[in-house]
Amino acid sequence: MLHLKEFMDERIGIINDELAKYINKLNAPSNLKKSMNYSLMAGGKRIRPILLFATLQAFQKNLNLGLPVACALEMIHTYSLIHDDLPCMDDDDLRRGKPTNHKVFGEAVAVLAGDGLLTYSFQIIMESDQFTPEQKVALVYELAKAAGPEGMVAGQLADMEGENGNLSLQELEYIHLHKTGKLLAFPIIAATILADCDREVKKELAEYAKHIGLAFQIQDDILDVEGTTEKLGKTAGSDTENNKSTYITLLSLEGAKEKLNEHLSKARAILERLPIDTTLLLEITDLIGKREN
Amino acid sequence: MLHLKEFMDERIGIINDELAKYINKLNAPSNLKKSMNYSLMAGGKRIRPILLFATLQAFQKNLNLGLPVACALEMIHTYSLIHDDLPCMDDDDLRRGKPTNHKVFGEAVAVLAGDGLLTYSFQIIMESDQFTPEQKVALVYELAKAAGPEGMVAGQLADMEGENGNLSLQELEYIHLHKTGKLLAFPIIAATILADCDREVKKELAEYAKHIGLAFQIQDDILDVEGTTEKLGKTAGSDTENNKSTYITLLSLEGAKEKLNEHLSKARAILERLPIDTTLLLEITDLIGKREN
Repeated sequence: MLHLKEFMDERIGIINDELAKYINKLNAPSNLKKSMNYSLMAGGKRIRPILLFATLQAFQKNLNLGLPVACALEMIHTYSLIHDDLPCMDDDDLRRGKPTNHKVFGEAVAVLAGDGLLTYSFQIIMESDQFTPEQKVALVYELAKAAGPEGMVAGQLADMEGENGNLSLQELEYIHLHKTGKLLAFPIIAATILADCDREVKKELAEYAKHIGLAFQIQDDILDVEGTTEKLGKTAGSDTENNKSTYITLLSLEGAKEKLNEHLSKARAILERLPIDTTLLLEITDLIGKREN
Repeated sequence: MLHLKEFMDERIGIINDELAKYINKLNAPSNLKKSMNYSLMAGGKRIRPILLFATLQAFQKNLNLGLPVACALEMIHTYSLIHDDLPCMDDDDLRRGKPTNHKVFGEAVAVLAGDGLLTYSFQIIMESDQFTPEQKVALVYELAKAAGPEGMVAGQLADMEGENGNLSLQELEYIHLHKTGKLLAFPIIAATILADCDREVKKELAEYAKHIGLAFQIQDDILDVEGTTEKLGKTAGSDTENNKSTYITLLSLEGAKEKLNEHLSKARAILERLPIDTTLLLEITDLIGKREN
């Protein structure tokens, strides 16, 4: 695994620097910048940017081409966490072991920091001089669809409405495909846009993205049962405590693990038949099944 | 004034229909669509779309060319009102005489409806088949800048931080130029993008937009003192009650009216020297100085 680990360490350093620069150059009230920066730098795993860079690598493209998109994506992911943690939503005091944004800056600033990150993410893509107008249009279209009322926002609402209810497996998949799946798939789709790859490869990679998105979520449910609070950085067993429908409650622990392996196998099979160098993506796929937080 | 009134009535009908269509075709949870639709259709004056259409008219462009942008703009304006009314922000129960979004749908749905409208607005512009990729890029760039952390979001934060404080005239202008000015200017800038007009005219119209944005806000402050709750559809005298810095507290009522007329005169002077048919824009400029709500 050394190969992927080195790749990740290097890329995480680069993206953290770039995110800081984007906030720093903003002509905005200092408290707004501080609040946006606080959550952006709160120790995210940068899994979405890593997926973007690994897919660009598979196409042998210059990785830095993906930097503005990776930053935009991480801003949208961060905005969704800030709003999700609000008292009127999940009401979380801690995120990755640190006080949540509204605990530090107050609710009003947290709402605005989220709004600001979301809007800035589209600006960043438009400002970049690395893309053609056609690429910019495709990137923002896909990003808005993945994050908006047909994507992540739909998933968050469905998740909220489904709480404490008895969901079917189909309803649970709808939630995950939208709440987390679409934004996990976006970096892979974005890389295909930047690589101008052909339609067939694009379709295969979109299917791959769907499988790893669901695998990621199933592993999340498994970790909630098998993980420790220390390793997770959040309270283990909270799904059971909150009486949430999960892959475990619907399929049993054994069934959930089978489902996880099914998605990972399908994801691997796609990578293996593609005419590109998928070494890194294969390692990431393995990592998703083995992650401990 | 019949000319402008007919133009407005017709255009408001068209944009209301189009907004309803945009929400209707969304593939999203029904409660999310209802909540987005509720605030979009809550009786807004559509002043921003009217400015866009009137500017397109000045360039003798097909007005329907502006429809997707007008809808996107109205969605962003509406999102900002929903988030602004939240208990953690202005905590308003009524907006245009109707219960605010969170009063009807709950806070969590209101947050998500705002997030959804904001994100969808960018998607709409990208989806349109009426614009070139270059126009789409310019439109989304200007819209994100006007609405984001260097525009409206900055103004909202500065406004919040300035509450109950003694602001200078310069600080008050910063707040208005950002909180409302940039999004009032955007439709005019958007029309210059769609008309592919030359740089000099663009610059003049941007200056015009700045003046009417400030005039609009000064008239808002005057109406809070001179208007009636019935005509305003919101509580008159609330600025005084909340001890807010306004153009009246800083310049006196007389001084505020002078400032208003100064901006309107400058706005008219720009329109009169432009080589386009600014009849409608001149009427709108007059209307801003005479509006009662």
